[in-house]
Amino acid sequence: MLSKNHTKFIQSLHLKKNRETEGIFIAEGKKTVSEILASDWEIIEILASESFLNGHASHIGDRNIKTTAISSEELKKISALSQPDDAFLLCKIPAQNPDHKKLKGDLVLYLDGIRDPGNLGTIIRVCDWFGVQSVFCSRDCTELYNSKTIQASMGSFLRVNVFYEELEDVLRNCSSVGIELPVYGAFTEGENVFGLKEWEPGILIIGNEANGISEKNKELISKTVSIPSFSKKAPESLNAAIATSILVAEYRRKKLA
Amino acid sequence: MLSKNHTKFIQSLHLKKNRETEGIFIAEGKKTVSEILASDWEIIEILASESFLNGHASHIGDRNIKTTAISSEELKKISALSQPDDAFLLCKIPAQNPDHKKLKGDLVLYLDGIRDPGNLGTIIRVCDWFGVQSVFCSRDCTELYNSKTIQASMGSFLRVNVFYEELEDVLRNCSSVGIELPVYGAFTEGENVFGLKEWEPGILIIGNEANGISEKNKELISKTVSIPSFSKKAPESLNAAIATSILVAEYRRKKLA
Repeated sequence: MLSKNHTKFIQSLHLKKNRETEGIFIAEGKKTVSEILASDWEIIEILASESFLNGHASHIGDRNIKTTAISSEELKKISALSQPDDAFLLCKIPAQNPDHKKLKGDLVLYLDGIRDPGNLGTIIRVCDWFGVQSVFCSRDCTELYNSKTIQASMGSFLRVNVFYEELEDVLRNCSSVGIELPVYGAFTEGENVFGLKEWEPGILIIGNEANGISEKNKELISKTVSIPSFSKKAPESLNAAIATSILVAEYRRKKLA
Repeated sequence: MLSKNHTKFIQSLHLKKNRETEGIFIAEGKKTVSEILASDWEIIEILASESFLNGHASHIGDRNIKTTAISSEELKKISALSQPDDAFLLCKIPAQNPDHKKLKGDLVLYLDGIRDPGNLGTIIRVCDWFGVQSVFCSRDCTELYNSKTIQASMGSFLRVNVFYEELEDVLRNCSSVGIELPVYGAFTEGENVFGLKEWEPGILIIGNEANGISEKNKELISKTVSIPSFSKKAPESLNAAIATSILVAEYRRKKLA
């Protein structure tokens, strides 16, 4: 049973400023909630049907998690989904402090102004699939803990480290621990990525959906890469998550080949 | 100025059954509307701001297109977008009759139960980028002329041929004109696509977002392909549009290599 105040508090967490003040985010849906339950993330509360709670009793166990059995009517009131899916969870936003020493030797993704939560979530899911462990975001990127980002990532936010840090700071912080990384920028007019003989580990920048890579970050790029088009009158660009996935897949493929 | 009846008629086209009865679809947004204006598709009516209509007078010219100058308030009433974008268009749904003889010699995409209009639109945009000219959809796929599909395709629906035909019919119709095409099925557990030495032209099936390729179509597959994962605990799958883009990119890359 949900009290009025309790409902109000949860609803307030659909706003970013309240998530930041409280340090709490919302995750929804049976699949995502189950994955968080199986992780060591600090869960504040689960609100779900009796049957979901019973089915996950072993994961809830004696952890200090508040459980609230709610009806589907109550779930509708707090859910952001058009079709609420049985389980709803409040989770503590973990501290996110990158260890720049760990960025050496693999591909690191840098998202420059990605605004669409669906794109960010999908990109995190792609990184999870391809084992890219670190994703850095410019501060004007959309928020990781937006419920649409969490939804689109399909649980992958639990396994991929996402940090918010300006690119110049990432590079300076790397430098201060003795790491110099090449910076690749994804452009529609760049060097054909399929033709690259080698692709050394480094940072790959994906730009904003409409405007591409920002001017200040363009200056930090050591090499451009592009996905060639194969049509006479192609669209202006590919969707940001699509471009990311093709580039990350190609990075991995080259390492296999 | 929009009359009440005119507004009602346009609003009715947001429903699939009315689009089918009238044979008319809606396209919105300056970019998409401009692209349709530059094409030879049969436009019924443009509803846009005075400035948009004046700016596109040369494309409207003496074609038999009704133009209606509308205010942003009027646009809001007929738009499906949260932020209506200046221009709105009614266009005749063209006849879609595949010429199976043309399917020889290149990759043909087969979408088996893609339900999300955003995914369908994004896949069409990807096909446009990579020059894949024919996309076949099972009849339970989402509709090409859903406004979200049109929106996500970013004008690419004008350049990629999309047909609705069951796979067995596609194969039978190909056979009747003397064409036998291999059928590749995308699975999470299939043959590593990066390891394939050659990828002969044929049909590539992408399955439904949740359930993959249908049982009846599985029987028609001659070879499985999969995108390898590079993480210990990867998500169950990739998004359907992401998987499509990686596979189509890899098909093209192999032809280049």
